[in-house]
Amino acid sequence: MNTFGTKFRLTTFGESHGIAIGGVVDGIPAGLKIDANFIQNELDKRRPGGKFATARKEADKIELLSGIFDGISTGTPIGFIIRNENQHSSDYENIKSLFRPGHADFTYFHKYGIRDYRGGGRSSARETAIRVAGGAISQLLLNEFGICVQSGVLSVGAVNFGMEIYENLDKFDFEFAANSEVFALLPNLETEFKDEILRAKNSHDSVGAVVLTRIKNPPIGLGEGLYNKIDAKFAEAMMGINGVKAVEIGAGINASRLKGSQNNDQMDKNGFKSNFSGGILGGMTNGNDILIKTYFKPTPSIFLPQSSINSNGSETEVNLKGRHDPCIGIRGSVVATAMTRLVLGDMLLLNATAKMENLRKIYGK
Amino acid sequence: MNTFGTKFRLTTFGESHGIAIGGVVDGIPAGLKIDANFIQNELDKRRPGGKFATARKEADKIELLSGIFDGISTGTPIGFIIRNENQHSSDYENIKSLFRPGHADFTYFHKYGIRDYRGGGRSSARETAIRVAGGAISQLLLNEFGICVQSGVLSVGAVNFGMEIYENLDKFDFEFAANSEVFALLPNLETEFKDEILRAKNSHDSVGAVVLTRIKNPPIGLGEGLYNKIDAKFAEAMMGINGVKAVEIGAGINASRLKGSQNNDQMDKNGFKSNFSGGILGGMTNGNDILIKTYFKPTPSIFLPQSSINSNGSETEVNLKGRHDPCIGIRGSVVATAMTRLVLGDMLLLNATAKMENLRKIYGK
Amino acid sequence: MNTFGTKFRLTTFGESHGIAIGGVVDGIPAGLKIDANFIQNELDKRRPGGKFATARKEADKIELLSGIFDGISTGTPIGFIIRNENQHSSDYENIKSLFRPGHADFTYFHKYGIRDYRGGGRSSARETAIRVAGGAISQLLLNEFGICVQSGVLSVGAVNFGMEIYENLDKFDFEFAANSEVFALLPNLETEFKDEILRAKNSHDSVGAVVLTRIKNPPIGLGEGLYNKIDAKFAEAMMGINGVKAVEIGAGINASRLKGSQNNDQMDKNGFKSNFSGGILGGMTNGNDILIKTYFKPTPSIFLPQSSINSNGSETEVNLKGRHDPCIGIRGSVVATAMTRLVLGDMLLLNATAKMENLRKIYGK
Amino acid sequence: MNTFGTKFRLTTFGESHGIAIGGVVDGIPAGLKIDANFIQNELDKRRPGGKFATARKEADKIELLSGIFDGISTGTPIGFIIRNENQHSSDYENIKSLFRPGHADFTYFHKYGIRDYRGGGRSSARETAIRVAGGAISQLLLNEFGICVQSGVLSVGAVNFGMEIYENLDKFDFEFAANSEVFALLPNLETEFKDEILRAKNSHDSVGAVVLTRIKNPPIGLGEGLYNKIDAKFAEAMMGINGVKAVEIGAGINASRLKGSQNNDQMDKNGFKSNFSGGILGGMTNGNDILIKTYFKPTPSIFLPQSSINSNGSETEVNLKGRHDPCIGIRGSVVATAMTRLVLGDMLLLNATAKMENLRKIYGK
Repeated sequence: MNTFGTKFRLTTFGESHGIAIGGVVDGIPAGLKIDANFIQNELDKRRPGGKFATARKEADKIELLSGIFDGISTGTPIGFIIRNENQHSSDYENIKSLFRPGHADFTYFHKYGIRDYRGGGRSSARETAIRVAGGAISQLLLNEFGICVQSGVLSVGAVNFGMEIYENLDKFDFEFAANSEVFALLPNLETEFKDEILRAKNSHDSVGAVVLTRIKNPPIGLGEGLYNKIDAKFAEAMMGINGVKAVEIGAGINASRLKGSQNNDQMDKNGFKSNFSGGILGGMTNGNDILIKTYFKPTPSIFLPQSSINSNGSETEVNLKGRHDPCIGIRGSVVATAMTRLVLGDMLLLNATAKMENLRKIYGK
Repeated sequence: MNTFGTKFRLTTFGESHGIAIGGVVDGIPAGLKIDANFIQNELDKRRPGGKFATARKEADKIELLSGIFDGISTGTPIGFIIRNENQHSSDYENIKSLFRPGHADFTYFHKYGIRDYRGGGRSSARETAIRVAGGAISQLLLNEFGICVQSGVLSVGAVNFGMEIYENLDKFDFEFAANSEVFALLPNLETEFKDEILRAKNSHDSVGAVVLTRIKNPPIGLGEGLYNKIDAKFAEAMMGINGVKAVEIGAGINASRLKGSQNNDQMDKNGFKSNFSGGILGGMTNGNDILIKTYFKPTPSIFLPQSSINSNGSETEVNLKGRHDPCIGIRGSVVATAMTRLVLGDMLLLNATAKMENLRKIYGK
Repeated sequence: MNTFGTKFRLTTFGESHGIAIGGVVDGIPAGLKIDANFIQNELDKRRPGGKFATARKEADKIELLSGIFDGISTGTPIGFIIRNENQHSSDYENIKSLFRPGHADFTYFHKYGIRDYRGGGRSSARETAIRVAGGAISQLLLNEFGICVQSGVLSVGAVNFGMEIYENLDKFDFEFAANSEVFALLPNLETEFKDEILRAKNSHDSVGAVVLTRIKNPPIGLGEGLYNKIDAKFAEAMMGINGVKAVEIGAGINASRLKGSQNNDQMDKNGFKSNFSGGILGGMTNGNDILIKTYFKPTPSIFLPQSSINSNGSETEVNLKGRHDPCIGIRGSVVATAMTRLVLGDMLLLNATAKMENLRKIYGK
Repeated sequence: MNTFGTKFRLTTFGESHGIAIGGVVDGIPAGLKIDANFIQNELDKRRPGGKFATARKEADKIELLSGIFDGISTGTPIGFIIRNENQHSSDYENIKSLFRPGHADFTYFHKYGIRDYRGGGRSSARETAIRVAGGAISQLLLNEFGICVQSGVLSVGAVNFGMEIYENLDKFDFEFAANSEVFALLPNLETEFKDEILRAKNSHDSVGAVVLTRIKNPPIGLGEGLYNKIDAKFAEAMMGINGVKAVEIGAGINASRLKGSQNNDQMDKNGFKSNFSGGILGGMTNGNDILIKTYFKPTPSIFLPQSSINSNGSETEVNLKGRHDPCIGIRGSVVATAMTRLVLGDMLLLNATAKMENLRKIYGK
C-alpha cells in the first residue's frame, strides 16, 4: 500500500516530523551508472525555500545505503533515507485534536483511530521528496534510451493560458520553466504567476495551479494489458500526488466536446498528423509526445480563521501556524515529473517481455 | 496485467471476435447472496442495441461457473464467461493490415508484432461487459453496507450542463438517468443529448461525452496508504476505460482556480459544510458523497474517409464498415459505475485491517 | 489468492462438482505458437482412469477461449475452461455435514462458514487439471529455449529407491516413466510400485509416494531477489499441490548431515564437479540440472471406517463412498511437472530485465 | 522481488558490506504497541558472536525511523535500518574475481554481470537480521492473539534425534532451546551438538543442521485460496532462507511411506486425535500445533583449499579468509522463527475478510 509500481517499484516510509523519510527502489537492472549528484539535484528542485514555498529549512540530503557498487547498480534494491531536520513540532500542539479543513486529519483519525498530528504526519507532502528521488533514479534508466520528461506550470489560480494546449505546444518553454522560480512554462506569464501567488500569500490565503508534463521520445508500445494501461497509470500516479483533483491526457476534457472526425489523429507516411491522443492509443504509447495536465487544489493550510470540529465532535475555530507553500502546484510540478518517470521506468521493464522476439534476443536463440 | 484490484480482484480475458470473453472475481467473502438476476440486469444496461448504440446483437448472457453454492458465495473465485455471438468478422477483412485512426491498431501491432484485427481484438470495448459483471458482483457486497453507486451523462459533445456540478447537485436526477435511453442526468437536456448524438451519427461521425458518477454513503476511511489512495484508484479505473481522456474528482479542474479559503470544506458539528473535496481527503473517503467526472472522447470508428497507413508503411484511405456506437460515453457510463464499484469493493476489504480494534472483533480478543 | 506467478500468471477457478473449472494465463509473450494438441495431451496424462487412479470419467477436454490468433499467442490473456461431466454429487450427500479425516472439510467450514461439500469443492485435486493446462502453455515457451521438465515416481509407500538420488542419477529413466502406468522412474521397481498401490486399494486403504522432478538445460541466473528465489518458489509450488508434505532440492535433507567439504560443489574449467546444490545457488539457477523431490501423503479418502465429528460437534463414524485414487502421488507427478513449468516460465520472464545489456538489446541502443 | 508478504509486507535492502541494511514493514494495523526492546532482543539472538558463530562483531542496533507515534503503530509503514560496522572488506580482495564453491558468486555474476564481492554482497546472510526485525514486529501482532512461535535445533550434522518428531513432541524443550548457546531442543543432545560443531570448526570445515519450528495456538482457517496456502507459504519462507535445502510439514517425508489409515488424523469431540498433518489441512490451519522442519546445508565458507574458476574461466584454488559460522543452521533457527512470524502475520490479516460475518462486525451492520 506504500509501494508504487510492478517491476520498477518504489516503497516509501516516513512522516513529516519523524526521524527520517526513506525509500527502497527495487527492480533497477544491473549495470546502470547511478549518478548521485543528479538525484540530489532533482531533490534540490523540490526543496523548500524561497518566497514561493514554505520557509521550512531542510537540506533534503539523500543518503544512498545499498544497491550500488563502484557507482553502478548491482540489480539489488537501492535503499535511501533523508533525515528530517527543521521540525517545529510545537507548531502543531494546538491542532493536536482538531481537524484542519482541507487536510487529511479527519480521515486518518477515523481510519486509524490514532494520528501523528505533527505536520500532517504521513499525509504531509514531505514524503514527495522520496518520490522525487525514486523518479530521479528512474530517469537514469530512461536517459539510456533517450526518454525525456519535463514539467512546468501552466496556470496559477485565475491566471491561465486560456487556450487548448495541444494546438499551442510551441508556446511552452520547458527550458525556461526549469529555471523559473515558479516553474512557469510561459515566459510572458511568469510575473503574473508570481503576483497571483504573492497576492494569495499576503492575504493569508493560498491558490491552485495547473501543471503540464511532457514526455519526449517514448518507445512505441509501453503500457500493459487492460489493467496496466499507461494512461491509467499516469492518472493514478498524478491523482495520488497531494492536492491533485483532476488529470487530463492529450486533448483531455476537450475531447469530450469534439467530433470523431476532429479528434482522430490521422496518419500519413510521416506518422501521426496531429496529437489529440496525447501520444497514447489503447493504453499504449504511440511514439508521439505524451502530454499530461495535472490540476492542483490550493494549499489547504491557510492563515485565515476557519471553522472546524475537534476529535470529540465539538466545534472550534482553526487558526493555523506553521510554514506552508502558498501554492502547492509549484513544487508539485517537480513531483509530477517524478511520478511520470516512475510510471515510465516500470512500463519500460514490463514491456520487455511483450514478444518472443525480445526473449530470443536475451536468451540467445 | 489483466487483473484489477488487490484483495477484491477481477481478472479478465477475451477478444471482440473470439469464442468468449470472461472473468474471474477473487476475494469475495463467503456468505454473500449472489443475485444472478442483478448481474444480468446490469449487463443488459450495457448491452448493444437501440438507436444510440451499435447494432451488433449480443445477448450478453452471463454463465456463472464457480464460487457459488446454493446461491451463496463460498469464498472461492467466481469464474464466468459470456459467449460472443453476433460477430461479423468479415467486416474487418479490409482493415486487416491498416491502422484505423484513433484506434489501438497501431500500438498493438508495434508492441506485439501481431494483432487480432477482428473488431479491435482485445482493445475492443466489448471486454467492458466483463467489468460490468465484476462491478455488479462488487455491488452485491456494497449493498450489504448501504453503499450506492450511480452514473449518468452530464454532457454530449457541445451540449453541456455548463455550470459547476458541485454547486448544482440538486439538478441531477440519477433515477431519471437510469431510465433514460442516453442515461441523461438532466431531464431537460435529454432531448438535446439525443439530437446531438443522432446529428453525429447521421453525418457518419461520432461525438464525445461526459459522465458523472456519484457514490452515496461510503464508510469513512476507505483508501490505503500513499500508493493506494482511493482517488488515485478512481482515476486509474476511469482513465483505463476505453476512450477516457480526463478524470476529475470533486471541484476538480475548478479547484486549481480557487483560493484555499474557497476550496477548503470547513466543518461544524453537523459535518462538512461543503463538498469541494468530492468526499475524499488525503486519499481517503470522508463519508460525504463522492463525485467523479469522466470525459470520453468521440468514438474513433467513423464512416468518413480518413487517411492512414498500412503495416508496411504505405499510405492508404480508411473507409470503415461495421457497427459502432456514435457516442461511446453513453454506454461508457455503465462501465464507469462498474469500475467505481470494483474500486470500492477492493477498498472495503483492504480497510478491514486498518486498526487493531477491527482485528480484535474478528479474532475475538 | 487464486493466482500463481508474477509476470507469467495463472489464475484458476472452479470446484470439483461445479459447472466448469477454468483458468487464465496472463503474460505470455506474443508470437508463440500455441499447440493445442500438446496442451490436451498433457491433460490426458493427468486424466482420471485406469486401475491406479479414480474411476471418475472425465474427458477433461480443454476449450481455449481467447489470446490466440491463427494459432499464435497475441500477448493477451489465454482463458480456458474444462467442463465437469461425470459428477456423482449424490456420493457426497452423506458427508454433507461431517468432516472427513485428512480432508479440508473442517478448515473450509471454519474459515468460510459454508462449504461446497460435493467432492471436496474447491479443495479437490480436480483443480490441478487447470495447473496442468497452464504448465503446458508455459512449456511451449520453455521449449523455445530448450528447457525440459520431467517427473517420475521415486517411491510408493514402503517401496523406495533407498539411495541418495544425486549420486545415482543415471539409474532414473524419465522416458520409461513417461510411458509407465504409474510413472515409475526405476524400471525395476515398477511392478513393486503397482503391487504396493493395489495392496492398499484392495485393503480399502491408500498409500503415499515420492516424486522426482528434473529440469534440464535451465539458463543461468533464473531467480529474483531475496523473496523470489527460484528454490523458494519451487518449494511453494510443490507444497501447494494437494497432499504434499515435504520438498527437497538437490542433496536436500542429506545436506544437513554433511560437512561443507562434502556438500560444496567445486568447479573446474568444465563447470561444477558435482551437483549437491541441485542446480541452485543463492536462489538462482547455476545452469546444472535442477532436482526436486516432492513427498505426497496417502490419499485421505479411504474406505475404512473412521471416527470424526459433524459440523455441530457430535461424534460420528465416517464411511466414504465415491471414486478415489489409491495413491495421489502418481497423478501428482504430472502436477509436479506443471508447477515446475509455471515457476520456470515466470522466472524466465522476470529475469529478462536483470541487466542493462538485455534492455539495450530490446530497445535498440 | 525484495518484498515478502501480501498484506503484511516486509521489503528489505542492503548488502553485507554496504553502509546499512534496512527494511520497511507495511500493513501493520494502527493501535499496536510497538515494543522496541523486544525487537532489539530478537535481533540480539541472531547477532554474531560466541564460539559457535562468526567472530564478526556487529552491534546490530536497530533504528526505527517511522510509523510509530507515542510507542503505538499509526498504520503507516515502519522503516528501519541497521548500520554495518565491523566490515573487513579487505578479507574479500582475494576472492573478487573467483567463484567460491557453494556460494552465490557464480550465479550473481552471470545474472547481473556485476557483483558486490565483499562478504557475499546481497546474498550474505547478514540480510536475515532484517527478517528477524520484521518477524519481531509481526510477533507483536501475533501476541495480541496468543499465537506463539518457537524454534530450536533438532540435529547437527550426524548428531540427530533419530525418531519421528510428531510421535515424540514431549521430548522437545523449546524453553531450554531459547537459552542454549546452540538452541538445542533436546537437552541431552546439547553437548553433542556443540562437539559436532567444534569438530567441524577445528578441522576448518562446517556442518549442516535441522531446525524445528512450532506454532502454538494458531486461529483456525489461516491460509488463502489455492495459491496462498499457508503450508506453501511456509515452504517458500523457509526454502528462501540462506542455505536451506528441504522443508517438511507435520509427518512430512514419513507421510509418503504411510497408509491413509495411519496418516489421517481422525477426530472425536475433543478434536483431532493425532497431528500427522502438522496442523494444516487443505492449506489452512486447523487449530492444532503447526510443526515445520527446516534443513540447512553446511556453511559453504570453509577454510580448506577448494578448486574453482575465475570469472574469466580459468581454474584456481580457493583459500578463504574471513569470519564465518561453522554451522549456519544454529543462527538459522532464529531466522526460521522470523519467517514463520511473517507468514502468520500476513495470513492473519488476509483472513480478516474471509466471510461476511467479519465485515459486518467491522462495518457495523
